Amino acid sequence: MSLASELPTLRARINDSCNRALERSTAVATHIRPAQELTTNAYQAIASGKRFRAIGAYIGAAVTTDTTLGAHDLDDLAAALELYQASALAHDDVIDHADTRRGSPTPHRIFEHLHTERAWLSNPQEFGQASAILLGDLLFSAAEASIHRFCSTIPTHYANSVYERYATMHTEVAIGQYLDVRAEQLPLDPADNNALDEHTITEVVRLKSARYSVVHPVLLGAQTVGATPDLRHALEAIVHPWGMAFQYRDDVLGVFGNPEVTGKPAGDDLIEGKRTLLLALTWQHGDATQRRHIAHLFNAPPHARHEYVGDLRDIISQSGLRHMENTITDLVAQGTNALEHAVTTGLISDQSAGILSELGDILTKRSA
Amino acid sequence: MSLASELPTLRARINDSCNRALERSTAVATHIRPAQELTTNAYQAIASGKRFRAIGAYIGAAVTTDTTLGAHDLDDLAAALELYQASALAHDDVIDHADTRRGSPTPHRIFEHLHTERAWLSNPQEFGQASAILLGDLLFSAAEASIHRFCSTIPTHYANSVYERYATMHTEVAIGQYLDVRAEQLPLDPADNNALDEHTITEVVRLKSARYSVVHPVLLGAQTVGATPDLRHALEAIVHPWGMAFQYRDDVLGVFGNPEVTGKPAGDDLIEGKRTLLLALTWQHGDATQRRHIAHLFNAPPHARHEYVGDLRDIISQSGLRHMENTITDLVAQGTNALEHAVTTGLISDQSAGILSELGDILTKRSA
Repeated sequence: MSLASELPTLRARINDSCNRALERSTAVATHIRPAQELTTNAYQAIASGKRFRAIGAYIGAAVTTDTTLGAHDLDDLAAALELYQASALAHDDVIDHADTRRGSPTPHRIFEHLHTERAWLSNPQEFGQASAILLGDLLFSAAEASIHRFCSTIPTHYANSVYERYATMHTEVAIGQYLDVRAEQLPLDPADNNALDEHTITEVVRLKSARYSVVHPVLLGAQTVGATPDLRHALEAIVHPWGMAFQYRDDVLGVFGNPEVTGKPAGDDLIEGKRTLLLALTWQHGDATQRRHIAHLFNAPPHARHEYVGDLRDIISQSGLRHMENTITDLVAQGTNALEHAVTTGLISDQSAGILSELGDILTKRSA
Repeated sequence: MSLASELPTLRARINDSCNRALERSTAVATHIRPAQELTTNAYQAIASGKRFRAIGAYIGAAVTTDTTLGAHDLDDLAAALELYQASALAHDDVIDHADTRRGSPTPHRIFEHLHTERAWLSNPQEFGQASAILLGDLLFSAAEASIHRFCSTIPTHYANSVYERYATMHTEVAIGQYLDVRAEQLPLDPADNNALDEHTITEVVRLKSARYSVVHPVLLGAQTVGATPDLRHALEAIVHPWGMAFQYRDDVLGVFGNPEVTGKPAGDDLIEGKRTLLLALTWQHGDATQRRHIAHLFNAPPHARHEYVGDLRDIISQSGLRHMENTITDLVAQGTNALEHAVTTGLISDQSAGILSELGDILTKRSA
C-alpha cells in the first residue's frame, strides 16, 4: 500500500463526507427558498480542493495503529477539517479581494454577480462581501457540528484532546492570518536592518502553514485513536519541519515558479507585497542598493509593482535564495532524521514510515 | 429571589467568565507582540453588552432544577454564548458599515484608525475590514474552546444535546443574517402585493431573534442540567412567542422610538432599509398611494431616504402599526398562557414561574 495509490479513493470518500455534513447542517433552511442561494454556494465552496488536511488526519490515524489508510472511520473529522478550510478561504478571499480560486470565481464574486444579474438595490460589491462573510460563518458552523458528531463516537478521553487541539488550531489560524495581513501594511525603511521582522514571519509560517496544514491534521488523526505522548512528539518532530519547508518552497515558487505550472502569475507574491522569509533573508544579506530596490517595490501601490518584479527577482537570486534553499534542505533533513529515529526506536513501523516519507515528498518536493 | 435582584451579580460573573475564556484561548499568542493588537481588540469586543444570552442559560438551568439563579456553574457555557455573540457582532458591523456600537467605535473602525495613525501602506478601510473579519473568527474559536471545556464537565448524554443545539444555533444565525441582508437589496414594486415576503421576514425574526437570543440560550441552560422533553417543549412554548414579540417591539421602536431613549436616530430602521413585519403589514393593508410612498423610500439610496421618513411614519401609524400591536399582544399572551399551563401541570414551580414572568416583561415591555 502506498499513499499515492490510496489518494483517489480517500479523496472521493472525503468529498462524500463534506457533502453529507453540509446537508445535515443546512437541513434547518430547506423550507426557506431564498436561503438556498447561501447553501448552494456552500456546496460550491467545498466542491474542490486537495483535501490535504483530511488526508493528514487519515495518515495520523493509520500511522498510530499501523493500519491501512482509511481503516478508521474519520468521516466527520475529515469533513470538519475541510469545511473549516472552506470557511477560512471564503474569508481570505474577501480579505485579499481575490477574483478566482482554483480557476472558479470566489464566493464574494459569485454573490456580487447574483446581485448585478437581478438588478437589486444598493451596491453589488458590498452585498458580495457581506454574503461571503456569512458563507464563511455558515461553513464554520457546519464544521463545528461535524466535529461534535465525530467526538461523540470516540472515547471521552480522546475526544477532549481532539476538541482542544481543534479549537486551538482555529485560534492560531486567525492570529496567523492577522499577522500576515498586518505585515503587508508595514513600510520598508532601507536604513532599518530589522525592517523585515524574521521572528514574526516565522511565526506566521508556523501558525498558518506548518501547524494548521500539517501538524494539527496529522495529530488530530493520531489522537483520535489514542496515540501515546511519545508517538505524538515523534510525529510532530517529523511533520513540523516538513510543514515549514512546504511553505518556504511555496514562497520560492511565488517568486520564481513557472506560471504554467503554478497557475499563478509570475512574481505574484511580490505584487501582493507578501512578507516572506525569502524576502527577509534577501534584506538581511543584501547591500544598501538592493534594499532600496526592495523598498521601492513594497512601498509602491500594488498596481505599480509590476515594473519592479524583474529586478527584484534578480536581487533575490543573488542573495536570499541560496540561504532559503539551505534552510529548506535543513528542514527536510530534520524531518527525515526524526522519522529514522522513530523507526529505530520502534515507535513507527516500516509500513507507516513509508506513508510518512511519501507525505514528506509531497510537501517538500513540488513545483506547483 | 427575583431576576432583577440577581442580574448585577450574574453579569459580573459572566464578564469574568468571558475574560478568563479569552485569556485561555489567546495564550498561544502571548509571545508574539504584534498579535496583541488583535487580542486587545478581542477583550474590547467582549467588554460590554447586556449578557442577555448568558442570562438566558442561567434562567434555563434554574427553572429546570428549581434552584436559585447562578446555583449551577455555567461559566464556560455563558462565555461561549457571549463570545460567539461578540464574533457575530464584529462581522455584522463590517457588513453594516457601522461606525459605533453602544457608543464605542466598532472593531473595523478601531483597526482602520490604527492603520491611519501609524501611516501604514495601502488602504486603512480595507485593513480595518480584514482585521475585523479575523477578530470575529478569533472570537468564534474562543467560543468553541469554551463550549468544549464546558461540555467536558457535564454528563455525555447532556453534552451531546448541548453541542447539537449550539452548532445549529450558529447555522441559523448565518442563514437568518443572510436573509436579512438579502431582503434589503430587493426593489419594491408598488403593483406587487407580495413584494414584502412575510414568510421570509418571519423566518428572519425566528432565526435571528426568537431562537438565537431567547430559545437557544434558555434551552441550552435547561439541557445542561437534564431537562425532560416535556419541560423543553414547555419552555420553548413559553419563550419563543416572547422572543418574537421582543423583535417586533424592537421594530416598532426602530421607527417610532424616542432617540434619547433608544440611543439610535429616529426612523433608523427605515433609513437602513430594513424589511420588517411592521413594514410588510403596512404594505399589505395600505392603499396604492401609500405603497408608492414606501417604494420611493426603499428604492432610494440610503443617504436620500431621510426626506421620506416623516411621511412613512405617518403611513405606518395609519395602517401597519395597529396590526403589529395586535400581533405583539397575541404573542405575549401565547407565552403567558403556556407558562400558566406549565405551572398548572406541575412542570414549573411558582418560584420559576416568577423568574420566567420577569424575563417575559424584560423581553416584551420595553421602550429601548
